[in-house]
Amino acid sequence: MTVSLHYLGPQGSFTHQAASAAAQLIPDGGECVAAPNVPAIFDAVANGNGWGVVAWENNVEGYVVPNLDALIDAEDVAGFARVSVDVTFDALVRPGHGDLTVVRAHPHGLAQCSKFIAEHALTAEPSSSNAAACRDIAADEVALGPSICAGLYGLNVLCKGVQDFDGASTDFLVLAPREQVREQLVQAETQGVTEFESIVAFIPLSTGPGVLADLLDVIRDAGLNMTSFISRPIKGHAGTYSFIATLDAAPWQPQFKAVLNTVVAHGDWVKTLAVYPRRERPNPPVSAWMLPDGGVRLTPEDTAAGMQFEPDDDKELLWA
Amino acid sequence: MTVSLHYLGPQGSFTHQAASAAAQLIPDGGECVAAPNVPAIFDAVANGNGWGVVAWENNVEGYVVPNLDALIDAEDVAGFARVSVDVTFDALVRPGHGDLTVVRAHPHGLAQCSKFIAEHALTAEPSSSNAAACRDIAADEVALGPSICAGLYGLNVLCKGVQDFDGASTDFLVLAPREQVREQLVQAETQGVTEFESIVAFIPLSTGPGVLADLLDVIRDAGLNMTSFISRPIKGHAGTYSFIATLDAAPWQPQFKAVLNTVVAHGDWVKTLAVYPRRERPNPPVSAWMLPDGGVRLTPEDTAAGMQFEPDDDKELLWA
Repeated sequence: MTVSLHYLGPQGSFTHQAASAAAQLIPDGGECVAAPNVPAIFDAVANGNGWGVVAWENNVEGYVVPNLDALIDAEDVAGFARVSVDVTFDALVRPGHGDLTVVRAHPHGLAQCSKFIAEHALTAEPSSSNAAACRDIAADEVALGPSICAGLYGLNVLCKGVQDFDGASTDFLVLAPREQVREQLVQAETQGVTEFESIVAFIPLSTGPGVLADLLDVIRDAGLNMTSFISRPIKGHAGTYSFIATLDAAPWQPQFKAVLNTVVAHGDWVKTLAVYPRRERPNPPVSAWMLPDGGVRLTPEDTAAGMQFEPDDDKELLWA
Repeated sequence: MTVSLHYLGPQGSFTHQAASAAAQLIPDGGECVAAPNVPAIFDAVANGNGWGVVAWENNVEGYVVPNLDALIDAEDVAGFARVSVDVTFDALVRPGHGDLTVVRAHPHGLAQCSKFIAEHALTAEPSSSNAAACRDIAADEVALGPSICAGLYGLNVLCKGVQDFDGASTDFLVLAPREQVREQLVQAETQGVTEFESIVAFIPLSTGPGVLADLLDVIRDAGLNMTSFISRPIKGHAGTYSFIATLDAAPWQPQFKAVLNTVVAHGDWVKTLAVYPRRERPNPPVSAWMLPDGGVRLTPEDTAAGMQFEPDDDKELLWA
């Protein structure tokens, strides 16, 4: 049976592109269905009407926090796959277009392609979405949008990849009811996947200094590698904290399972938000040349040579 | 002398509203100056051409990560004040307007005021910014924008606070060259401020399990309260990590100073990004009714009564 993949519409959004990529991973195929908003995606999944695809993290903008908050709060929805989409814009035109004088896109798209717009001396006009720009394109207009838009709207590609900066990408989670998440993960294991990543939300019921340190000690002592971490207020409760960690392990693996047992025994709230096959990721050692401008660092050699703080360090630490 | 306050333009943005609020805190007054982009703000501050105001954190969207990354990487720029602005939209019209049929705003503004637009059966037209919508407003149009826009563009307020949801707010940091940040903080202390918050970036030069736990142990053992925490890749280096912590203390206070000493002695990189007077913040205890749907928690009573995990818990933890 074909599974519905609910994504944030309109058709031709980057999320649509991610849903199309996810559909190709499904043996029986998936049908992409545009949802009017993210809560509708969670509702569709929770009600057994298919799977969902939501933006999770962008390498420039960070987490898509409203979607993170929604997944923490969702009943019976979790992620089982993570799909990455490059944020690239194609310049699209109508077949048989005339002189091109105007460029249309969502204001973000216009801002991300400012060099292309300036080089071609086009007048920028905002659209409500990149997809709307493609759909409503006139004969004298260029529309900027994800590559999926050319085929969707019958447009020609004038120029591929016209964004100012390369290298931006957005990761999406594929969501399903929890029962189906377990089935998908069992299937992945049968197909030979042995390494997984997990995203887990923790809420300590006690507060005060050290709550987070105590939690991370448990994770460290289990030898688990954490690749991302963020604190968020519990939805609707300013001044409270939940912690969301991404770990290089699956919750059914003994060390991770022991961590979850310890945390629950401590009286804290825990929920696994997603488990998916481990991504190939760079893991470079941190070298001194990677460090940002300014700041303070003493190398082991500095310390051995008896080097101390310098006057400039006071400025960097603001401690004097 | 009047200080220039550089903010992300155009005039009439929420950042402009934050800069105006910041200007009122300056005894000699501040002049708000629109910058074309955020790097231009950092440049102006680093070159001694005044102060800057940048968006830092929104309670719904989370951190403004590109600004966070820019501050980590900035030479000789730090924050000394934190200003909060409510994200509210006013419906503005031209004096002597005609029949109103169209509503204009940035697509985000249109999306955040969807109920108002539907109730008044207005046709939504996107603008490149809310300010541009106000500036270019026609006689049959309503523009949605921050309250500062009415005065800036000579418009009448048709209706105040037409956003779908109340309670959203964005915090901004006021930035200065580090020498001036120290002067401002000394001045705050002379004026009787005794409690501060600090935002500090840490980069461990070693990697692997436990690096973060070891760092947080130092902070816990010093008794420092942490109110926000996020990990980020070092700019341009996927797979590396920096940690950004917000703490309830000033770096010159002995316990915090000892933490910084310990971390630097360990060979890690540290930079203080901002120090500002402590905000009044809610600090409610976490009660069970605040917890999100689903998840797993055993109360001390459960544990005492010998209660164990239930079948549903497997689904929430995905550990079976």
